[in-house]
Parts: sequence; C-alpha cells; structure tokens
Amino acid sequence: MSYRVMSGELEKHVGASIRLCGWVHRRRELARVTFLVVRDRAGLAQVVVPPGLPVPGEESVVEVTGTVVANDVAPGGFEVAYEAIEVLSEAEPPPVELFRPAVDAGLPALLDHAAVTLRHPARRAVFAASAAAVKAFRVTLDGLGFTEIQTPKIVGTATESGANVFALDYFGRRAYLAQSPQFYKQTMVGVFERVYEVGPVFRAEPHDTSRHLATYTSLDAELGFVRDHRDVMAVLTRVVRAMSAAATAGLPGAEPVRMPDEVPVVHFAEALRLVGADPAEPDLAPEHERALGAWALAEHGSDFVYVEGYPMAKRPFYTHPQPSDPRWSNSFDLLFRGMELVTGGQRRHRYADYVEALGPQAEGLSGYLAAFRHGMPPHGGFAIGLERFLARLTGAANVRETTLFPRDLHRLAP
Amino acid sequence: MSYRVMSGELEKHVGASIRLCGWVHRRRELARVTFLVVRDRAGLAQVVVPPGLPVPGEESVVEVTGTVVANDVAPGGFEVAYEAIEVLSEAEPPPVELFRPAVDAGLPALLDHAAVTLRHPARRAVFAASAAAVKAFRVTLDGLGFTEIQTPKIVGTATESGANVFALDYFGRRAYLAQSPQFYKQTMVGVFERVYEVGPVFRAEPHDTSRHLATYTSLDAELGFVRDHRDVMAVLTRVVRAMSAAATAGLPGAEPVRMPDEVPVVHFAEALRLVGADPAEPDLAPEHERALGAWALAEHGSDFVYVEGYPMAKRPFYTHPQPSDPRWSNSFDLLFRGMELVTGGQRRHRYADYVEALGPQAEGLSGYLAAFRHGMPPHGGFAIGLERFLARLTGAANVRETTLFPRDLHRLAP
Repeated sequence: MSYRVMSGELEKHVGASIRLCGWVHRRRELARVTFLVVRDRAGLAQVVVPPGLPVPGEESVVEVTGTVVANDVAPGGFEVAYEAIEVLSEAEPPPVELFRPAVDAGLPALLDHAAVTLRHPARRAVFAASAAAVKAFRVTLDGLGFTEIQTPKIVGTATESGANVFALDYFGRRAYLAQSPQFYKQTMVGVFERVYEVGPVFRAEPHDTSRHLATYTSLDAELGFVRDHRDVMAVLTRVVRAMSAAATAGLPGAEPVRMPDEVPVVHFAEALRLVGADPAEPDLAPEHERALGAWALAEHGSDFVYVEGYPMAKRPFYTHPQPSDPRWSNSFDLLFRGMELVTGGQRRHRYADYVEALGPQAEGLSGYLAAFRHGMPPHGGFAIGLERFLARLTGAANVRETTLFPRDLHRLAP
Repeated sequence: MSYRVMSGELEKHVGASIRLCGWVHRRRELARVTFLVVRDRAGLAQVVVPPGLPVPGEESVVEVTGTVVANDVAPGGFEVAYEAIEVLSEAEPPPVELFRPAVDAGLPALLDHAAVTLRHPARRAVFAASAAAVKAFRVTLDGLGFTEIQTPKIVGTATESGANVFALDYFGRRAYLAQSPQFYKQTMVGVFERVYEVGPVFRAEPHDTSRHLATYTSLDAELGFVRDHRDVMAVLTRVVRAMSAAATAGLPGAEPVRMPDEVPVVHFAEALRLVGADPAEPDLAPEHERALGAWALAEHGSDFVYVEGYPMAKRPFYTHPQPSDPRWSNSFDLLFRGMELVTGGQRRHRYADYVEALGPQAEGLSGYLAAFRHGMPPHGGFAIGLERFLARLTGAANVRETTLFPRDLHRLAP
C-alpha cells in the first residue's frame, strides 16, 4: 500500500506513488480534465483526474492514490496524477464555499456553522496562531523558572466581587464558576514562587459587546520576590513579545506587531491628561484607550502602552497601593492597539493588610488568607485574554471571530 | 545591592556576597550558633547566624544577605554566612511542621491547610511532576503534528449522558458544565486533523470514592485518518511513555515505571476470562482491573495493559463498533497499575451512523452533527485523567493527594 504524504511535502516524493488523504477542498470538472484540490492539515494539493470519472463533492473525505509529478502551473509546483480514489465519507455541500479566498458569511452564520467554517484556511490559521501564542506563553515562562498549575473552576466564594458570577447547584449547595484563578495563583506563589495557568474563566457579562464573552481563555501568571509591579511588567513584556512573534509567524497577511525595546509606560493620572479627560475620572473609557493607543504609536512607534497607577478605589482588594501615594495603586493595564489586553499588578502580601482591606468579608476567605497568615513574599502577576489578543493581532472587529465556539448572552451552541 | 542566588546554585558563587530569598524552612537556635534553613523555588540552603541574634520563625519570608562558603558538613556542601537579614513577611507558626521528612497530617488536614501543606518539598514535588507530565503530553503531540485547542466548558446539552452533570443558570436558561471536550475535539478533527486539549472536566459524581472527583484535569487528544483504534493506542503509548519519564525524573523516591516496547493488549472477552469473571459481565469491576494489572506485570513486566473491544452496550453512542463483530467496540481502556487511567477508541465518522445511533436525540446535537454531515475521516482519541496518573505514579492511595485543591461531594474549599 502506498504511504501517506502531506500536501506540503509533495516535492520530496516526485515520481512515487503515494496516498494523499484529506477533504475535497474544491472540485473543478472541465471538458478535458477534472481537478480536485485536496485539503489536509498541512495545506492544499492538486490532483489531476481524467475527465468523466465520477469524483465526490466538496468536503467529502478522500484517500487519493497517485503519482507525484512536477508541474510549473500547479499550485506549489507539484501535483498528483490520479490512480485511484477511495471516498472515506460522503459530504453534503457545505453551507459556505470554503474554496473562496475569504469566508463569505456574516458573523452569525460564521458561528452557527463553526464545524464547517473553521475549516476555511483563513479561519484555521487564526486558531493555529492562537495555539502558537499559547505555546510561546508557556515556553517563555518555563524559561524563567515558572511552574504550570491547574486550579479549581468551581469555587465556594466569588473571586473578584459578587457581580457577574455564574451560580450552580453543587450537590445541593450553592457554588460559583471561577471568575479568575487569582486566589489560587497567589496561594501557589507560596509553593513555587512563580506559576502560570492557562484555563477558562467565567464572567456572567450582562452586556452584549464586541469585546466581552461569558467565558474565555485566561493566560495567568504570578511571581514572588518582586520589588514592585515594574518587575511584573518586565516579565509580561517578554511574554507578549514572544506571543506576538509566534502568532504572526503563522499569519502571512497580519499587520506586523510594533513593540519597541522599551514599551512606553504612562501613569494613570498622566494618561487622563494625555487624552484630555477629567482628572477626576476613576477609569479609562474605551475612547481613552483608543486615544492612548494612537499616542503610543505616534510618539513611540509602539502598538503597546502600559498604564500604571490606577486609582485604588477601582481596583480589587488584593491590589498593592502605590507606596508614595496610596490613592494610586501598583497595578497596570497593558493596552494593545488601543484596547486593554492585560490587567496586572503588585498584590498585597501582608496578612494584616488583607484583614484590614477585607473587613468582615475576610471570614469567607480563610483558605486563601492562610497563605498570607503563613508568610508570603511581595508578589504580583497578570492575566492575558487569549481571544482578545488574537482579535487585536488579526484586526478582527469582534472577539467572537477569534474564539472557536464563543459563549455570550445569547449563544450557547454549537 | 547583592544579587539573588537560588539555593541550588550556591557552589557557583563561593566567596561572593549574595542574597538568598525564601521562606524560613527551619530555625535551629543552638548555644553557639543559629541555623536557618531557607527554602526557595529551587530547594533548600543553610544560613549560619551568630548566636543570640533574633531570627524569624518558620515560614517567615526573608531576604538574607551573606557570603557563600564551602562547608563539607552543610547540606549540599555550601552554606551562607550571615551578614544581614530582612524579614519581608512575618508568619504565624504553620499548622503542620514543614521541615519533617514527611507531612504529618491526615488527608482532611492536608487538604484543609493546602496553602501551607503544599509548600512541603514532598508535596511540591508531586505537582512539579504533574507540570512535567503535562508538558511531556504537549511536546509529544506537538511533535506528531497536533494542534492545541480550547473548547467551551459551558454547554447547552450534556455530552456523555444526562447523568452526573452540573446544571447552571445561564442568563435565565439552563446550561451544563462540560463532562468532556468530546464533541468539540471530534469537530476539530475536521479542521486540524489532530488536536489536543488540557482542561477541566466536570462530573457531578454522587459517589465518595478514592478515585473520583467532581472536577479534574483531562488530557484529551483526537486524531483523524486512523485505520482503527490501534492507531490511537500507538499515539497514546508514546504520550504515556513520555509523561511517565518526565514525571518520575522529578520524583526521586518514585517506583520506576515499567513499560515494555510492546504494551500488552487483551480483548475484553479475554480479559473477563483471565480474571475468572462471568463472560456475560458488561464491564470490568475495580477488582478485575487490579487482577489484570497483576497479570500484566507478572506475564509482561508491564505496569500498563490495554483492554480493547468493550461491549458496545456500555460505550457511548459515538463509539465505533468492532467491524468483525458489532457486539464489541473499537474502544479501549488503558490500565495503569491495575486501575483505569485512559479511555479511548475509534469513533463513528459517518453522518448516517450518528443519526441511527442517536435516534430522536440527534435533534439537540445539530451543531456537533454538522461536522459529520459535511465530511469526517475515520478518527479516534483518548482522555487521560491527570490527577489519577499522578496518583498511580506516586502510589498515592487517594486521587485527592495529587490534586492541588480537590472538589468532591463534600469539599468546595480551599
């Protein structure tokens, strides 16, 4: 029996009888010849079939046996001369023509028919880039002495606040889906000093926006023995630089990522001034983020800009205040092309500070607070939204385009 | 300011004034000298402090400045001669003495105080081994052309069956936590041919056993263009071999894993005969699995044994029947030291077969069935329970010992 060759490796097998396995990407029946373009995990390859032979329709799964021949006018310079074809699965015609250069479908159709539309080479490339980005995240942190962890997604108390949590019936008790691994990654700094986690987080977002989902993949990291949040930012910059390089390598048409050696850093108070906002604003609005992104690109040639020092009043209880002025915090956001991509910062590390910040709420968090009661170093961390990163990178207008099977207010399938 | 040196690298800095940062693992105040053993992410190092100086208690977080000196009687042959100490965090005495060779606590105390007990070097080693195993899983599959995916954990329909699912209120609708990524990984075979996912799965297990949890980490893989389940088993064997090697490398006391070049394979019917069970039994009981494990070790010198051909009646609807006799299936379990570690098999791939197998249930699964309607190759896959793998590897009697923060019928914290 002939051996299988991937579409990208035909040139190494000229003259050999091989098997090409994949989906019929396109069938073109001309008067004197039929062309089958076969799609496999490596790409596309053309099969030349004598005219008049019955060939299966698009998306059928086939095993073609044939001889590899060089042909200057074939895509890639090589093609397969048909000897036999076995149809492994017949397919109904796809709801969207996958051989077109772009997917001709609106967002609802794109998502409703995800099982098929994701097969389009352009769609597939986005998620191959996503996998490359996640790998770069891990490789970078592995190289810095981090350890990967898996922490619970079902929790007894809401992590960040009582809002936006999904509740479930847990063997007759009330439990919640974790909004983030925050408490656990901090706890694990006590064990490994440096940890990361790649996993789902859950937010019952009641808003229908182009940048929020009910669940997304969070790339979390946390590290101990930092001086302040700037040490966290230094690690984050390395991570995002590696992720950007890895992801764009697989996206030929993507805009190159501009990330100078020194990513600009602006204090929150200065950021408000730069964008002409009221100095009493407690947070940055989306239009402020866009203006800061434009400023960073114009002034620093950077797609990224750090905003540090967000007001303590708008940050969660575990946020470490800015030592020089405790109205501000040692926290930051990293904006990517004018949109928040990462939130991070230094955390409090002294038990007494937690007890004071939490007040009566400390009661329900004794498992978490045990880490601080029994000695924790100065530490901090960050969380990157994977789908949002891919959206900014590819220029997708909606984060749903960079999520395999998104979940939102309305969508629970496929 | 002196630079930080990790405990494992003192020998490279003899004579230098360095900083050692970590937790006070042990404090021993003798008449003529005080010893502080400092624990950092790399291990332990001894600091020699002049007598009478106040030193912080166990688990306090310190930055010690001192000179590295060789000392044959110091652990590792090197120690740090005290110059100064800064206490970054005071700690209350830990609930369990972490400097003892073994953790002196029963399972409930071990888990209740996880934030502290996980710091014990022996506990920490288990989860470092876990991270190494997950990395080996990914590296092996990356090398075989697999692509990593992230799929939804909130689903509109139960995956495997209606039993054992957690229900939640999803913006006023009923939704479920995914019992596995099964439907999505199969769908993604249509996109990438070969995919894997590392993520949480959720089972509302009503039984309180030493090997079941309400949520665990599932290492899932799925691949297309297989002849049958044996191709899936060949990939799995490579994966488990790499995971075993990577994990045991970090567990000096662990029993070596015995995995011959050819892992024994027994048909289900033969397995029943081997263990003296009733030939009409539809499944293997735990004692049968133990007996098969003992047989594999005695007869084949193997900690692993595959059982293939489980009765179709006991396998889910997507299971591919055994072509030679459709009472049996092309599915398998991999037993590790007498316990089921992995379930896998070949899946059905023809749309008509799904429609027939599902009957009226097909209605609710149209998003999943679209993959088959529009062409899917013969494929199969497997799911490895990470925590169970670590339990078998370390000899832990209970899977809770190899889970950072386990969730079960009773436990929802920490």
